[in-house]
Amino acid sequence: MESRILISAFEPFDGDSLNPSWEALRSLTPLPNNGEILRLLLPVSFREAPRLLREAVEKHKPQIVLSLGLAGGRSGFSLERIAVNLADARIPDNDGEQPRDLFLYPGEETAYLSTLPLGQLLNELEKESLPASLSNTAGLFVCNAVFYEAARLQARGRIRQAGFIHLPYLPEQAAEKNAPSMSLEDMVRGLNRVVERLLSQELA
Amino acid sequence: MESRILISAFEPFDGDSLNPSWEALRSLTPLPNNGEILRLLLPVSFREAPRLLREAVEKHKPQIVLSLGLAGGRSGFSLERIAVNLADARIPDNDGEQPRDLFLYPGEETAYLSTLPLGQLLNELEKESLPASLSNTAGLFVCNAVFYEAARLQARGRIRQAGFIHLPYLPEQAAEKNAPSMSLEDMVRGLNRVVERLLSQELA
Amino acid sequence: MESRILISAFEPFDGDSLNPSWEALRSLTPLPNNGEILRLLLPVSFREAPRLLREAVEKHKPQIVLSLGLAGGRSGFSLERIAVNLADARIPDNDGEQPRDLFLYPGEETAYLSTLPLGQLLNELEKESLPASLSNTAGLFVCNAVFYEAARLQARGRIRQAGFIHLPYLPEQAAEKNAPSMSLEDMVRGLNRVVERLLSQELA
Amino acid sequence: MESRILISAFEPFDGDSLNPSWEALRSLTPLPNNGEILRLLLPVSFREAPRLLREAVEKHKPQIVLSLGLAGGRSGFSLERIAVNLADARIPDNDGEQPRDLFLYPGEETAYLSTLPLGQLLNELEKESLPASLSNTAGLFVCNAVFYEAARLQARGRIRQAGFIHLPYLPEQAAEKNAPSMSLEDMVRGLNRVVERLLSQELA
Repeated sequence: MESRILISAFEPFDGDSLNPSWEALRSLTPLPNNGEILRLLLPVSFREAPRLLREAVEKHKPQIVLSLGLAGGRSGFSLERIAVNLADARIPDNDGEQPRDLFLYPGEETAYLSTLPLGQLLNELEKESLPASLSNTAGLFVCNAVFYEAARLQARGRIRQAGFIHLPYLPEQAAEKNAPSMSLEDMVRGLNRVVERLLSQELA
Repeated sequence: MESRILISAFEPFDGDSLNPSWEALRSLTPLPNNGEILRLLLPVSFREAPRLLREAVEKHKPQIVLSLGLAGGRSGFSLERIAVNLADARIPDNDGEQPRDLFLYPGEETAYLSTLPLGQLLNELEKESLPASLSNTAGLFVCNAVFYEAARLQARGRIRQAGFIHLPYLPEQAAEKNAPSMSLEDMVRGLNRVVERLLSQELA
Repeated sequence: MESRILISAFEPFDGDSLNPSWEALRSLTPLPNNGEILRLLLPVSFREAPRLLREAVEKHKPQIVLSLGLAGGRSGFSLERIAVNLADARIPDNDGEQPRDLFLYPGEETAYLSTLPLGQLLNELEKESLPASLSNTAGLFVCNAVFYEAARLQARGRIRQAGFIHLPYLPEQAAEKNAPSMSLEDMVRGLNRVVERLLSQELA
Repeated sequence: MESRILISAFEPFDGDSLNPSWEALRSLTPLPNNGEILRLLLPVSFREAPRLLREAVEKHKPQIVLSLGLAGGRSGFSLERIAVNLADARIPDNDGEQPRDLFLYPGEETAYLSTLPLGQLLNELEKESLPASLSNTAGLFVCNAVFYEAARLQARGRIRQAGFIHLPYLPEQAAEKNAPSMSLEDMVRGLNRVVERLLSQELA
C-alpha cells in the first residue's frame, strides 16, 4: 500500500525574506511511485498554524506528518525529540501575538515524543555526510506548537507518525548574521533521504 | 597581459581525513583565457610550508598569491587582514613541531596587511549570497606562517599581491563536530568569483 | 509552619575535580529561623542518584526538593522547565553506565514541568543582577534523571514542589576550557535568594 | 626605585550603563609602598582617547601603561598580543564617528606587539584560578586605537612597557545578553595580581 506524507514548512518571520524550511520543501524532488508527498506552507502564527495543520490532516488523511522549521544558530539538521505543551515567545509571531508561558492545551499531556524513527533518520543523514543531531528542545515558539499539534493528532490515532526537523539558516541569511548555515542543495539532499526512508517503512 | 595566480591549500591535519582548502582548490574550474592558475598543496608544517611556497613563487613567478586554509568553527569565508610575525601552536603540526611564542623571522616586520582588494572580494561573495567576513586574526599556526611568507615576498617585490582566506569545515567534517560548515559547491562557487575578480584586476 | 527544603547537588564527573553544584550547596549560608535546609550529595549515577534522592525524601519528608547540577558551557543560572522520561548519555556516568535512548520509567509520563515558581525565582536573580534564564532542556543525563525523579515524587503527592537549576562552570574550571563561568560567591548569593524565596512561600 | 604604572579604562558605550574596565579599575586596591598607580578614564572616542592617553603619559611619565577594555562575549581575561594600525568600527563611537578601514597613523608601523610579560601575567591569573588566555586580536575599535597609541609611545621610548587586557561583561550586563561574564571581585583580584606583578619587575 502506498504511503502518504504531509510535510509542512513555514513562511518567513522575524524580518527575514525567506524561510529555509519552505525553500527546502518546495525544492524536494518527487519520489518514484512508492508514496505521495503533500506540501503545506504554514504562517508563523500560534493561532493559525496548528489549526491549518489539523485541517490538512483531516482533509488529506496522511499516514505521516513531518514538520520543518528554522532554528537560526544551529549548525545542522536538528531531529527534535520532544514537543512540549507550552507557548513562550521571545518575539511576536506574524500576527503580533506573543504568548508568555501559556499552555497550548490546558489540562492535556505535558509533552509528546516524536514517533518518527529518529535513529534511522540520523543514520541516513550521516550516510550522506550531512551534519545532523538529535535535539532535546524545539523551543516554545510556533514550531513547537505545530509539532505538539501533530503529535497530539498522532496520539489520537489520526496519523501513524509525527515529527519535527529544524533546519539551519541558508547561506544567504547567514551572510548578514555571521551564523552557521547549510546550502539549499544539502538541505534538499538530506530531506529527500529522510522522506524516502519514511515512505519505505512498513507502517502496517 | 595575462595574469598568473598561485593558489595554495593545505593537507589534512589534527586527525582529519581531508582539508576543505585543498578539496575546494582542486575543484576550482579553470577560467576562460584571461589568466593562469597554479595550484600548490602544502604540508601542515612550520618548517616546510613557507619554504615550499617561496620556492614555487621563485619558480613560477606569479603576480598574485592566494593561500587557503581551514578555520574550524568559523561560519563563512574569512578574508584575513593581517599576517603576524609569530608562531604559537596549540597542537603539533604534521611534523610533530609545536613552536610556542616564537618569531617567524626574528628582527623583521611585526605584521603585514593583506594586499588583496578585500572589500571588493567581500562584495563579490556577498553578491553570491555566501557568508563572508573580514577577519582580524589568521591565528598563529601554519596558516599564518604561510600568509606571512607570502606577504613578506610581496613586500620584497617578488609578487604584486598576497592574501589569505580561511574556509569553514565541510559538512562531512561538521557532522562529527557539531560545528558550522559550508558545502564544497559553495566554497568552489565563492572561490571562483574571488579568483576571477583577482585575475580581472589591472595590476599595472 | 516551618518549611523544609531538600537541596541536592552532584559529585564531580567527566574528569573534573569538583562540581560547582556541590561547592555552591555546601557554602549556602543557613537561614534565620523560617525553615530548614537539608543538603544531599549525589553520585553521578543513573542507578544510584534517583534512588538516593527518593530515599532522602521518604526519610526527611521535605516540602520542597531543589536539585542542582552543572551545565558546562552555559553562562548563568538555568532554571529548568521540564524533566523528560528519557536517558541518553553522551558520556558514561561515574559507574561506567551509558544508557542510550532509554525510558527512565517505561510506560509513565513523558515529561513533568517544574513546580517551582520559576518566574519569581528568575525575578529574584535579576534583582541580584545575576545572569539567569529559563531553560527548555535539562539534557538527558543524570541531572534530568534526578529532576524527573523529584517531579515524579511531586506528582505522587510526596512533596509540594520539585525543580532543577543548572549552574555554569566555576572560574577555575573555565580557566582550562575557555568556557563561560560564574564565581562561587555569585552562585551562593543567587542560591541564597532562591532558597529564601522558596521558604517564604505559602505552601498551604 | 619606585615604579609608576598608568592604567586606563573606558566609559560605557553601545547603550551600556557601565563599563567593566572602569568598574574594575576604580576598585583596584592600592598597593603597599612599592609603586604608584595612576588611573585614567577614557571616552570611547577614536579622536579623544588616544590623545588623552598620550597627554597623560607626557604629564605623569609612567614606566608602564596598561589599558583595559570590554570584549563582550569573551569568557575571561584576554591578554592582547598585538595592536594594529587600523580603525574599522562596526558601530559608531561615543562621538558618533565610525571610521571604516582607515589607518590610525598612515605610513607608520603596521602593528606593535605587547611589551608586557604576557606569559608571566597569564601564569599569575592561572595561579588565582581565574579564566585567562592570550588573544591575537584586540579588534579594530577604540580599544585597539588606545593600545596602538601606547605601543607607539613605547616604541618611541616614552614608556618602558605597554599592553592591553580585555575583560568580559560583568554579571549584571550578561543578565540581559545571555553572554559569559566575570564577577567584579574576580576582575579586581586578577588585576591586582597583574599590577603587582608588573610593579615587581626589574625595569632597569
